[in-house]
Amino acid sequence: MPRYRLTIEYDGTPYVGWQRQVNGYTVQEAMETALSKFIRSTPALMAAGRTDTGVHATGQVIQIDMADEFEPERLMGALNFHLRPEPVSILEADIAPEGWHARFSATGRRYLYRILNRRGPPAVDMNRVWHVPVPLDADAMHDAARVLVGHHDFTTFRAQQCQSRSPVKTLDALTVSRVGEEIHVTAAARSFLHHQVRSMVGTLKLVGEGKWTKADVKAALDARDRAALGLNAPPQGLYLTAVTYD
Amino acid sequence: MPRYRLTIEYDGTPYVGWQRQVNGYTVQEAMETALSKFIRSTPALMAAGRTDTGVHATGQVIQIDMADEFEPERLMGALNFHLRPEPVSILEADIAPEGWHARFSATGRRYLYRILNRRGPPAVDMNRVWHVPVPLDADAMHDAARVLVGHHDFTTFRAQQCQSRSPVKTLDALTVSRVGEEIHVTAAARSFLHHQVRSMVGTLKLVGEGKWTKADVKAALDARDRAALGLNAPPQGLYLTAVTYD
Repeated sequence: MPRYRLTIEYDGTPYVGWQRQVNGYTVQEAMETALSKFIRSTPALMAAGRTDTGVHATGQVIQIDMADEFEPERLMGALNFHLRPEPVSILEADIAPEGWHARFSATGRRYLYRILNRRGPPAVDMNRVWHVPVPLDADAMHDAARVLVGHHDFTTFRAQQCQSRSPVKTLDALTVSRVGEEIHVTAAARSFLHHQVRSMVGTLKLVGEGKWTKADVKAALDARDRAALGLNAPPQGLYLTAVTYD
Repeated sequence: MPRYRLTIEYDGTPYVGWQRQVNGYTVQEAMETALSKFIRSTPALMAAGRTDTGVHATGQVIQIDMADEFEPERLMGALNFHLRPEPVSILEADIAPEGWHARFSATGRRYLYRILNRRGPPAVDMNRVWHVPVPLDADAMHDAARVLVGHHDFTTFRAQQCQSRSPVKTLDALTVSRVGEEIHVTAAARSFLHHQVRSMVGTLKLVGEGKWTKADVKAALDARDRAALGLNAPPQGLYLTAVTYD
């Protein structure tokens, strides 16, 4: 049975996340519905990262195991055709190398968080950015972000429902820059705790508006206590942009 | 009666254009509905440019004449509040100078046209770009665009229903550049004919895929005949980005 490796993009707005569940429509279900239009077997899907309700992806990687064999080009074309009008798109498809696993073989994940930092609320990008109307100091945010980079116990920045065995993770990069009316936060690590990126962005937002200092971020990290968290940023600004493999 | 000058942004997807009409919901109607929630008089609205069904704006300028007086800041806040969840946003508001008219005082209009030039269809930007899966040569498009810049009879690039008195216009700028996976076409002029930008973009797309040459674009312009048009680009890639006044 061939394993297909697909890079996909989706607008997370209409979905309760990637993974199939009983309380709402998911990206996985949208893909399974599209597959059922042209394959006979029941495929098994798995993603590199489970995105939450309203979170987007421009570089999610998934695997599909199924009995039917297709040229990857044809699979991509048929899936994109049958996915319409769902806001889910296949960007690349190939047959995975022997032993490759979308989730367990991944050695890096990258996220982008988009803050729209202007007075007027988003219209064209409604549901695609976090609207922060007060002016943010991107340089101060970038400087404070350096406190979080490295090998730390990220308990403060971890959701209560997080299923990771350990709160200790290595954050490889966390950068903040201004791009026109937006502030972009990028984060890279082998793996992240549940809500880690949103929790870090929420905390940096407090620094950007001058309510917290770099030292406050350090104190929150050192507290190893969810109660020390400043703020959890909302889901609609978050994008899974890349998953890397060795 | 004060005249307010507002800069607004909207996602054109759910609207049959800016201007109120019987066959569908328009941006103007969305704004009039929001205004009716907090003012008592019947306001008169006019925009600098009438956008078509599905066309977006990030810098449309409108005027509102109404009996009620508001601080511009309060008007902007109340409108943004009552517009939710419509994808229409007020970016700036002030009281217009004496004699100023949103449409007739405008001395320049700028448009951006976004082409998503990759194999996979748009997901995050569905309805916000024109998807062209075949690779386009942005340099060839930019070079061919120079044929159209200047003072010309643009009959070839004019919709049949265009109400402009003359097909002669001065195109101040038309540029094509690649921005990541996108190709951006920008156009600037005092005013445009109906469908002029979309007609020019459709023609340049033929150049980008190697079906037309720069000479073919010149021949189409010189024909002064709508039948000589190569292709009219779809509305969803078009953005009115700025209106300028002396």
